[in-house]
Amino acid sequence: MKSQDIISELCLETDSRIVLLVLDGLGDLPQDGKTPLEAAHTPNLDRLAAQSACGLTDPISMGITPGSGPSHLALFGYDPTEYQLGRGILEALGVNVEVGEHDLVARANFATLQDGKIVDRRAGRIPTAENIQLCERINRELTPIEGAETVVFPGMEHRFVVKFTKAGLRDELTDADPQKEGTPPCYSQALTPEAEESAGIVNAFLDRITTILRDQPRANTALMRGFARYPAIPTMQERFRLKPAAIANYPMYRGLSKLVGMEVLPVGSELKDLFEVFEQNYQDFSFFYIHVKKTDSYGEDGNFEAKRAVIEQADAQIPRLLATKPEVLVVTADHSTPCLMKGHSWHPNPFLIHSRLAQPDLVTVFSEKACSQGYLGRFPARNALTLMLAHAAKLQKYGA
Amino acid sequence: MKSQDIISELCLETDSRIVLLVLDGLGDLPQDGKTPLEAAHTPNLDRLAAQSACGLTDPISMGITPGSGPSHLALFGYDPTEYQLGRGILEALGVNVEVGEHDLVARANFATLQDGKIVDRRAGRIPTAENIQLCERINRELTPIEGAETVVFPGMEHRFVVKFTKAGLRDELTDADPQKEGTPPCYSQALTPEAEESAGIVNAFLDRITTILRDQPRANTALMRGFARYPAIPTMQERFRLKPAAIANYPMYRGLSKLVGMEVLPVGSELKDLFEVFEQNYQDFSFFYIHVKKTDSYGEDGNFEAKRAVIEQADAQIPRLLATKPEVLVVTADHSTPCLMKGHSWHPNPFLIHSRLAQPDLVTVFSEKACSQGYLGRFPARNALTLMLAHAAKLQKYGA
Repeated sequence: MKSQDIISELCLETDSRIVLLVLDGLGDLPQDGKTPLEAAHTPNLDRLAAQSACGLTDPISMGITPGSGPSHLALFGYDPTEYQLGRGILEALGVNVEVGEHDLVARANFATLQDGKIVDRRAGRIPTAENIQLCERINRELTPIEGAETVVFPGMEHRFVVKFTKAGLRDELTDADPQKEGTPPCYSQALTPEAEESAGIVNAFLDRITTILRDQPRANTALMRGFARYPAIPTMQERFRLKPAAIANYPMYRGLSKLVGMEVLPVGSELKDLFEVFEQNYQDFSFFYIHVKKTDSYGEDGNFEAKRAVIEQADAQIPRLLATKPEVLVVTADHSTPCLMKGHSWHPNPFLIHSRLAQPDLVTVFSEKACSQGYLGRFPARNALTLMLAHAAKLQKYGA
Repeated sequence: MKSQDIISELCLETDSRIVLLVLDGLGDLPQDGKTPLEAAHTPNLDRLAAQSACGLTDPISMGITPGSGPSHLALFGYDPTEYQLGRGILEALGVNVEVGEHDLVARANFATLQDGKIVDRRAGRIPTAENIQLCERINRELTPIEGAETVVFPGMEHRFVVKFTKAGLRDELTDADPQKEGTPPCYSQALTPEAEESAGIVNAFLDRITTILRDQPRANTALMRGFARYPAIPTMQERFRLKPAAIANYPMYRGLSKLVGMEVLPVGSELKDLFEVFEQNYQDFSFFYIHVKKTDSYGEDGNFEAKRAVIEQADAQIPRLLATKPEVLVVTADHSTPCLMKGHSWHPNPFLIHSRLAQPDLVTVFSEKACSQGYLGRFPARNALTLMLAHAAKLQKYGA
């Protein structure tokens, strides 16, 4: 029996509450001897660490740098190597597109076709406003293709998402993207016999859009990559008997939460808004995922000072979480985003679990280094949810 | 999807370089309060540890004492429980026998047969020189057996290796060894129907060799154990897109490296020769495995002082490795060989990884005890290669 099935069978529905605060991309490497987390003034997180059991988590496994999809799935208690999210799904979630069970999505670029060749794979990076207008026009002119409802959704600059809706669509499709410029457009190919119909629909769409855009100087065709269907993921209600809510102000994380069955609460764009929505909804859910994005964004920018400052802002909100007296409060990250690397990395995440039932350890500061000395040791992030359930008294005994 | 397949798919071929220095059997237990590593004066390793991420590795799993084969396979990124090397293979590698895909090898002893019984399983431990002469004579007189080319290779004292070459040979064979003295010789038995032909060949060889040696007073028959075929192991090039080189002056380690696709560089017998060959070949490979054997040998001898001295000699060579500025330098061991035990043990190995992207931790000394406080925690040795690839920027992101 797989350990996740064992856990599912042991879950109890109780009134106890779990709060999971994710500081996206928190972990970092030192500059002048300190990481942003070490350099930040974080009296609340440090006090919490002193009262908590601490450790380090690996999102996938040692040395593997995760994307946001797998690293979040792990934190939500799913084995990220078992449940894989196609790039098209994440892109769709990122522009707030709802994806259902009969949908096939892909991420797409507007591109420039000239004399039968793709001469610019990004259509000169057209402005987002132009993209929005083009998508509106396409949606106005498109009719269903072989029975598949087809809609496009604008993203930033030349990027958009296309969604096909019809029962039986498949995603075993090659990219409709020649990958390099100066070559003719490229159709998608079915990788299995079952995907032939889908390939036909996708390629007919490519022809249609090229016809619709024929008067455009730059954005007169498209490329499509990462075809993906809605992943069939059992919800957190089903697996863990939780009533989960997501408080996140970036579309991708809202979409990811929805995928695992969370109710996605409306929230403003400021960091403090997250905590206000938490307070307002505390009575109505048993699990809260609160997502702070900017720690990651500034890591991606290589902006050490700004990352440090966001950490301090998040620290200042911690008392609001504690004031509601949740049975379990976890503060951690989904992955590291070192300023030095300006991107995600494999370095493990600082982790603390605060609960009446947590074993306090020798850690008195919340940092990468300090957590490496914690009572929890270093463990796979997908075990974190089991720990939260246990500390919230939501798990029965295994065996007699 | 298995995690090793995930890793293979993420590998990138880059110019960055990885150096893996293995101090064989390094880990030890204290005598008068200090292990040889703690007692040694190792300013270079200690400085390195202070700048590195440190930890402890388990070659197989907690409490399991590994042989050299599995412990090295783990360090080379292979799951040692999946790829198993027969004892015959290791013995063959140890006496520098090349083993190919149609070969079946076994380790063998000369033994004494008298009145139809094995009276000495080691033929009185005949001198190695006599062994060499006997093997030459056997090779001169032997003709192919049922189409199998058969050659013997002398080892130390009474030990030799026998190699059968023929397409379709199998190794599902019991040992041709009565295990105790005073009992009749014992033939090998096929454990599967497919191995019947091989059993016939092996047993015919046993009869032939007994005929050839009939005039010998002591070494007048043989025992054979550990029948093994060439293991089909994907190379490090295939799995990790590395261009690997081995710098080792003991045959078994050279043979092991070859099994996983390393180019085995010619090298002298002194410790400093290893580092000279490294310097000379630095431009031509992306992965270097450098093997220092004597830490293990002195551990096997129970010679604490000599082991301490070898550690100091290796320490003195560290600056030569750093001078080439590899992207990643790892110093560790394959297994522990405590002087107290005069043999391999299960104790985990001190491990350090030095890289611009490594998280320095609180460890400032390279020792068993100090590494247990490291940021990397305690982890399976087979994850070490993933860490090296990550720190050398040779791994792409997993998922989006």
